[in-house]
Amino acid sequence: MGVGHWMQGICVIGFALLLCAANAGGQEQPRLNLMPMPANVQSGSGSLRIDSSFSVALTGHTEPRLDRAVQRFARQLSRQTALPLSANSSAKPTLTVQTDRASKDVQELGEDESYTLSVAADGAKIEAPTPLGAMHGLQTFLQLVAVSPDGFAAPVVTIQDKPRFPWRGLMIDVSRHFIPLDVLKRNLDGLEAVKMNVFHWHLSENQGFRVESKKFPKLHTLGSDGLYYTQDEIRDLIAYARDRGIRVVPEFDMPGHSTAWFVGHPELASGPGPYQIERRWGIFDPAMDPTNEKTYKFLDELVAEMTKLFPDHYFHIGGDEVNGKEWDANPKIQEFKKSHNLTSNDALQAYFSGRIQKIVTKHGKAVVGWDEVFIPGVPKDIVIQSWRGQASLAQAAAQGYHGILSNGYYLDLGWSAARHYAVDPMSGPGANLTPEQQQLILGGESCMWAEYVNPENIDSRIWPRNAAIAERLWSPQNVTDVASMYARLHTIGGELEWLGLTHRTYYPQMLRRIAGSGATPDELAGLRTLADVVEPVKDYTREATAPAEPSSATPLNRLVDAVPLESDVARRFGERVDKYLASSCRDADAAAQLRAQLSIWRDNDAKLQPLTQRSFLVKEIAATSQDLSTIAGIGLAALDFATKGSAATDEWKAQQLAVIEQANKPKSQLLLMPAPPIQKLVEAVGAGGSCGSAK
Amino acid sequence: MGVGHWMQGICVIGFALLLCAANAGGQEQPRLNLMPMPANVQSGSGSLRIDSSFSVALTGHTEPRLDRAVQRFARQLSRQTALPLSANSSAKPTLTVQTDRASKDVQELGEDESYTLSVAADGAKIEAPTPLGAMHGLQTFLQLVAVSPDGFAAPVVTIQDKPRFPWRGLMIDVSRHFIPLDVLKRNLDGLEAVKMNVFHWHLSENQGFRVESKKFPKLHTLGSDGLYYTQDEIRDLIAYARDRGIRVVPEFDMPGHSTAWFVGHPELASGPGPYQIERRWGIFDPAMDPTNEKTYKFLDELVAEMTKLFPDHYFHIGGDEVNGKEWDANPKIQEFKKSHNLTSNDALQAYFSGRIQKIVTKHGKAVVGWDEVFIPGVPKDIVIQSWRGQASLAQAAAQGYHGILSNGYYLDLGWSAARHYAVDPMSGPGANLTPEQQQLILGGESCMWAEYVNPENIDSRIWPRNAAIAERLWSPQNVTDVASMYARLHTIGGELEWLGLTHRTYYPQMLRRIAGSGATPDELAGLRTLADVVEPVKDYTREATAPAEPSSATPLNRLVDAVPLESDVARRFGERVDKYLASSCRDADAAAQLRAQLSIWRDNDAKLQPLTQRSFLVKEIAATSQDLSTIAGIGLAALDFATKGSAATDEWKAQQLAVIEQANKPKSQLLLMPAPPIQKLVEAVGAGGSCGSAK
Repeated sequence: MGVGHWMQGICVIGFALLLCAANAGGQEQPRLNLMPMPANVQSGSGSLRIDSSFSVALTGHTEPRLDRAVQRFARQLSRQTALPLSANSSAKPTLTVQTDRASKDVQELGEDESYTLSVAADGAKIEAPTPLGAMHGLQTFLQLVAVSPDGFAAPVVTIQDKPRFPWRGLMIDVSRHFIPLDVLKRNLDGLEAVKMNVFHWHLSENQGFRVESKKFPKLHTLGSDGLYYTQDEIRDLIAYARDRGIRVVPEFDMPGHSTAWFVGHPELASGPGPYQIERRWGIFDPAMDPTNEKTYKFLDELVAEMTKLFPDHYFHIGGDEVNGKEWDANPKIQEFKKSHNLTSNDALQAYFSGRIQKIVTKHGKAVVGWDEVFIPGVPKDIVIQSWRGQASLAQAAAQGYHGILSNGYYLDLGWSAARHYAVDPMSGPGANLTPEQQQLILGGESCMWAEYVNPENIDSRIWPRNAAIAERLWSPQNVTDVASMYARLHTIGGELEWLGLTHRTYYPQMLRRIAGSGATPDELAGLRTLADVVEPVKDYTREATAPAEPSSATPLNRLVDAVPLESDVARRFGERVDKYLASSCRDADAAAQLRAQLSIWRDNDAKLQPLTQRSFLVKEIAATSQDLSTIAGIGLAALDFATKGSAATDEWKAQQLAVIEQANKPKSQLLLMPAPPIQKLVEAVGAGGSCGSAK
Repeated sequence: MGVGHWMQGICVIGFALLLCAANAGGQEQPRLNLMPMPANVQSGSGSLRIDSSFSVALTGHTEPRLDRAVQRFARQLSRQTALPLSANSSAKPTLTVQTDRASKDVQELGEDESYTLSVAADGAKIEAPTPLGAMHGLQTFLQLVAVSPDGFAAPVVTIQDKPRFPWRGLMIDVSRHFIPLDVLKRNLDGLEAVKMNVFHWHLSENQGFRVESKKFPKLHTLGSDGLYYTQDEIRDLIAYARDRGIRVVPEFDMPGHSTAWFVGHPELASGPGPYQIERRWGIFDPAMDPTNEKTYKFLDELVAEMTKLFPDHYFHIGGDEVNGKEWDANPKIQEFKKSHNLTSNDALQAYFSGRIQKIVTKHGKAVVGWDEVFIPGVPKDIVIQSWRGQASLAQAAAQGYHGILSNGYYLDLGWSAARHYAVDPMSGPGANLTPEQQQLILGGESCMWAEYVNPENIDSRIWPRNAAIAERLWSPQNVTDVASMYARLHTIGGELEWLGLTHRTYYPQMLRRIAGSGATPDELAGLRTLADVVEPVKDYTREATAPAEPSSATPLNRLVDAVPLESDVARRFGERVDKYLASSCRDADAAAQLRAQLSIWRDNDAKLQPLTQRSFLVKEIAATSQDLSTIAGIGLAALDFATKGSAATDEWKAQQLAVIEQANKPKSQLLLMPAPPIQKLVEAVGAGGSCGSAK
């Protein structure tokens, strides 16, 4: 790697750094808290000390974007460490970044993103063919810097890294709830940190058309409640993304999911109108009229405007979930279907898709669409985004089409990081494809649908779980250890906070709102204890169990809106229970740990009681709080049996399991996560040997 | 108050609100969590329900500033409740704001800030002579809104309110550490919330000249490390403050505290130069040359520029802490003193003050200065800001001079809220003044000197304690109940978070930096437990005990920088100990509570041990962690004696008290706050009766 030979002919970026050689040898090798895990890591011994001043030098190809990347890096390093930066420059930079050449003016799919990073005790170097790789290397370096017994330091290491998939994205739906630009920006900062390179901007929906159109201003003025992005703001965001090695793919969802378009332009619709912005969630009837030439003329002009605004080569046309009711109800459309030999609404939609794809192609772009746009004869440069699953993706690849996977990466469904992490674009049917066909699977995108997120809680629904998906798409396929993933996710979750993401800080604030600002510290602690072990119901159960029809007017201020989608406390408790039960001779220390946790839970309802009397937002979770205390008591009783080595009666076990089963049912749209592990404790009573009394 | 008759002729501000009459009667009256406490509060029964939509109407005098105030109010209400706002307007506003007339174009000292606020079950009304009072009323309404068993609500109440003092300010030193504009703005939001009306902007110091001067650009280009406010930014901040009923008083500290001026303009100084920006803290030698006419010509031109930039009638010239060493070393200055019959450096400084006061007066402004500018014959429109104390203030008032108190309100000294709260501008010598003389005492200012604050932790050094000072300056003099103050401070502390202040959120983040991002949740909990019961050393002890000379290059990343200046946990523990010891027959429940807390502390060092091995920032507090465990064990032993009713030997007590005395000494600039109450437990062993065994 030539570390030590790269100090000449360099331009030093103007912020300060002092460099001290660390004590070599003898130190324990720290675990590398990198996420996504690089393709190749070789650990050395010793470390590079990061002291009260620090400098970076750029060599080889330079450009203003790289300068900004280094400034951003420095700001971030300063936040992580609180080392103040000064205006001094250094003759001996701590970190040199060697970039060979420019990347494309508009970032393209498949550009070289590789880099090598070598850290020695006296300096570090990043080498990359393009700025994209250089920026990835800077992010890896930031993750290497950690507190040590002697100060901040980066371990000696050599990393060779490149992504497994070229398309690694996050989609954010900004239509169901509007997400302001600053919130998007901090999430782009997060994408940069985990090396994702696509921001898929879901810009139009039944609930809002969020882009200023100069050509058809009624789209945004009548279709957005005033909540839209100006074209200047969009250009600003695209530049912000480019600075971070991120492509921006816009989506205009057609011909369904388009009620908001019709408020200003009812002539596009298949129904008689008039239309209003949809406030509810779900799949609705309004759809564009695919039989009217004026629809295509309008879309041609709109696509002309929008393809100029969005420079990326790909243009997403949506295409999902048309229920066909407006088409069925329109005699003219029925007539058209007959006269064109379109025997189903699917065929009619395929006709529409074909037309819109031609329009997009005419304007120099390639189409991305959801599964539904994959119809016979579509051009080969289309990219299928699969919400249906790996089979659908593999089927497209088998026929020579590109695809990206989103099924399994829906962040709004409340899955655990482990469950997302287990989803691989190449597993299942994809594994049987030929190598050439596998090349067609470009990667994947996590999706943040916005029924239940707003600027206050959206970060917590994306992070840190999205980092696990980012690793799946970047790191080698065999990087699958779940325990390692969770350990590193915990670390990266903390580091992401320094970017201004609010996925941790929002939580105590929302709990204080629920408790009321007059709640005592003890009451708040009680609420926190409960909140820490519940999760929102999964998949689409929230709609199914909603007390009233949810809509954009529903305040997102309930506990279900506040708690993280995955309970770390419950997960760790479950792991401890498994470990305890797995040991043939049950460990008294492990039992004591479980007992301590269960005692806190058993006693918690009493702490929360005063709040249930004062706050309607606590009142609604009173039953869940009682359940927690009840099942914790059962868990303690089960441990008592194990400790005493005595067997419970079958009747006792059956009674307790019935109580746990009740507690396991969602209440106020929350799942009580300790219920399953406590169930295991009860089921195990009398089953395993107990050596507790022998200790 | 005429609630119910004010629905006509109103202009409804465009954001939504639904209004439902709450169930009248039968509900328990909530404690009113208002801070500052209004002059007059009459509680009624019932409440006004704040539902999923809400509207405000402005009547009487209106102006764009009031529209913006209502929009800000709505945004804040929405944050507090998470009720979404819609674009709908309402025919029946929930809240009407009646304003009689405009206030002055440039806010003046002593303008009418009074308002009345009446909340009925079917609507609320604010009435105020001027927009200043109307805005105060809106803030009071926000504090009234609380969670209830049936939703959000404001209690029925009638409030008549006006401030006790007309000058209620916060000074922020932006020179020792630069504080960016957005941080200042969120603090101005905080000032509005607690009805403070002056932002005193300490803009120049040895460590930085922070204002763009177009007349003398070398002042900011060479004297600020590039960290200064442009004139556009300053105008922006002044407008932001005016929108919130806050005057902006600039301070240019002269003739001392001015090293940064001399980097670009050594000709102003009394020494030979050259000068560099000072990096250390303390009092330094450089001072302006008061004998050189060119100094006054320069200052005349600078004051001309700055008095145009800052519209407030008052202009602060500093004037504090000249050590006179440069004057003594300069023969020309010695000569001048002799020839002008100036027998001391104090007299020389008085000469300078007189000259600069004439300059300020010539430009149409009145002077504010620290105690030192109070010299015989100064104009009567001067305002003395007293850092020396109440006696100094009373002395000035006795001679017919206006004054404001800052002694006792220095936020950087780490005093408790209760200690600040006890300081009254009118107590002590002020109480003996005639009523006319008392009128000259205009109020006070809290001061945030910036040696140990930066954008990351400054909010936590100002808030929530500053709200207690704000109450002292606004509320009637007899509002002094400390328990009530702390209860309300806890509440307002939470509410201030919705403004974006970071005085709570910064804390876990800084602890995670100290622990390292790889720390486990248990390790972090151990650090938090320790951090929650230590406080930074008080007054100026930090300088006196610094391990190395602190400066602007010192990272503020240690535990002493991270912990709040007042430990709520330790304060509550102390209160519990006092209560326990005060009861003649000691309560077993109270003892159990103390025991639970002490057990956590006793066991905490073991949890923290792994971190002391991994992080230098934890290693430095290892001794304090051991001390906490040790004295907690002693506290438990003392409780054991009390419970058993047996008496400890004098030898045992002496030994334990010696250990506690050691733990009570600051280590790594931290005080271990549970030490004094545990000392009380030990001292009380054998002193009180024990009925514990009888329960």
